[in-house]
Amino acid sequence: MRATLMYAARDVRIVNVPDPSIIEPTDAILRVVRACICGTDLWPYNSMAPSDTGQSMGHEAIGVVEEIGRDVRTVKRGDVVVMPFAISDGTCQFCQEGLNTACEHVAFFGNKGMNGAQAQALRIPYADGTLYPLNVREDNALMPSLLTLSDVMGTGHHAAVMAKVSAGKSVAVIGDGAVGLCGVIAAKRLGAEHIIIMGRHADRIALARDFGASDVVSERGPEGVERVKQLTGGYGVHAVLECVGLDHAVQTAMDIARPGGAVGRVGVPQHTSIPGAEPSFYKNVTIGGGPAPVRAYIEELLPDVLEGRINPGRVFDRVVGLEDVPDGYRAMNKRESIKVMVRP
Amino acid sequence: MRATLMYAARDVRIVNVPDPSIIEPTDAILRVVRACICGTDLWPYNSMAPSDTGQSMGHEAIGVVEEIGRDVRTVKRGDVVVMPFAISDGTCQFCQEGLNTACEHVAFFGNKGMNGAQAQALRIPYADGTLYPLNVREDNALMPSLLTLSDVMGTGHHAAVMAKVSAGKSVAVIGDGAVGLCGVIAAKRLGAEHIIIMGRHADRIALARDFGASDVVSERGPEGVERVKQLTGGYGVHAVLECVGLDHAVQTAMDIARPGGAVGRVGVPQHTSIPGAEPSFYKNVTIGGGPAPVRAYIEELLPDVLEGRINPGRVFDRVVGLEDVPDGYRAMNKRESIKVMVRP
Repeated sequence: MRATLMYAARDVRIVNVPDPSIIEPTDAILRVVRACICGTDLWPYNSMAPSDTGQSMGHEAIGVVEEIGRDVRTVKRGDVVVMPFAISDGTCQFCQEGLNTACEHVAFFGNKGMNGAQAQALRIPYADGTLYPLNVREDNALMPSLLTLSDVMGTGHHAAVMAKVSAGKSVAVIGDGAVGLCGVIAAKRLGAEHIIIMGRHADRIALARDFGASDVVSERGPEGVERVKQLTGGYGVHAVLECVGLDHAVQTAMDIARPGGAVGRVGVPQHTSIPGAEPSFYKNVTIGGGPAPVRAYIEELLPDVLEGRINPGRVFDRVVGLEDVPDGYRAMNKRESIKVMVRP
Repeated sequence: MRATLMYAARDVRIVNVPDPSIIEPTDAILRVVRACICGTDLWPYNSMAPSDTGQSMGHEAIGVVEEIGRDVRTVKRGDVVVMPFAISDGTCQFCQEGLNTACEHVAFFGNKGMNGAQAQALRIPYADGTLYPLNVREDNALMPSLLTLSDVMGTGHHAAVMAKVSAGKSVAVIGDGAVGLCGVIAAKRLGAEHIIIMGRHADRIALARDFGASDVVSERGPEGVERVKQLTGGYGVHAVLECVGLDHAVQTAMDIARPGGAVGRVGVPQHTSIPGAEPSFYKNVTIGGGPAPVRAYIEELLPDVLEGRINPGRVFDRVVGLEDVPDGYRAMNKRESIKVMVRP
């Protein structure tokens, strides 16, 4: 079959690989119906050291179950399922607490040697715990929005939950990528009254406004902080969704949070320490977040997708076939595209 | 009157200063019945740059209201009151939310030119919001425990609340100073099942055990982390109370927190960034805390003090008169004393 492998920074190839097969009795084989390219795939795209064997890419998919191991119980052949970005067994203490991304068997698709979803098919360990069956056909018109439940919508929701967004709160979303945009949807959905998007790409900002952002701040650093304070009576916002992960963004998050506020961080940290120890301390700002347990969030978010109350699939502004995935990486990296969907 | 002023590192003097007087109509004058020396007073004691005018010291007190301004309503002459370490007006949005330490008029006693409580008397701005009247006489036997409601007991409680301690949780308290010891009391009071104290002073550890600590870890750094993991089935603790503020302690906090756990930090940060960005992110650990809104916590903690269910006053192991306050600083700094009470 065909699959996407990255061999070095800017070196993404579609290659022939062996068809996946059941190894453990808890495995399933998933035929990929939709996959996509993630903002986090751009980190290795810009920095990966050369590798002879390559890294199989992609961690978001909707697919059809083709085959199951003999111990798989809740997922059946023919099911259309969401494949969240992380494997989870569904039974350990962390899965039971709803933190599937801390599962005792956690692993991330398309990372550290794990197989990826930018492919025709892939093996799914712990299929019962990992996959979420949908009661839809594979040609469902909502497929783009359903696909976001595998990562970006669940991740934006996690940022909002960790930032304690609730009715009437003021919110700032740092980053106008797909996760930030889904963060706007999540904040609106949770009842936020005032949503500020911090970003500077016209197409993304327009979408953020459609999703419910009431103000735009395109300044960065101290000017951006000042602008957010002006928009919030001088106090800052109750909730900050940090969807970037770079120090300047995290510092801004600490500086724009209102006393007693909260920062939900889902941008993968690119540094070993968190800036803003003092402002966050003296303001009693809570900092939470990490890899989103998107598997646990599907149940809450799915009805809103199926009934059209939220349309996170609008973050996809380009669709490519599998052979054109390398061009998809290029387009996302050049900011020509917000997020690229893949139809293998 | 006599008051404690610090003029430089290690230079604490008891000097004559003018008697305090009402300046604003919302002021009160407090005659100090009990004050104390705080671990945070030791930071300037070890590092203060020389000052000609000196800094009035002390931010914890029980006192008797001697005089009130014409707009003071809830506090009357003769009331025995707790003086929390921070001024709060009691009416702004932050006070109403229970975050008195973010009050729009906040200021800290004995800091940045504010008058201090290691004195015979002091002026209390926003007396109605700041002072908490007790229905006790000034010779009440519970005075030491009541005094801790002005800072250390409320601060230990804040760490526990921010670390989300609740029934059945495993807890580690980093730091065996008075705040850490009160953190043990707070964790026990909130129902923690397993409490690990991280510290290395025999007298403090003994008191921590009396307060409810079930295990002691005196190793630091990676060895300390390893030891806590051994004691918690390899996972780490649900709740970490960080009562030190130095980088090595905060790093340990991040490393010993269980996935999905929380760190409550009340140690004043001594660095500009928070170490452990990656472990805290990948484990979805929540970080909260800051200057404790002790004024807001008195209502919850006071009945347990009055009815003897908690005895935080045991952290005081030395009592001095006002003239001996400099020796109290010396003793605390040498770790000869856990916490020194002052009877002016």
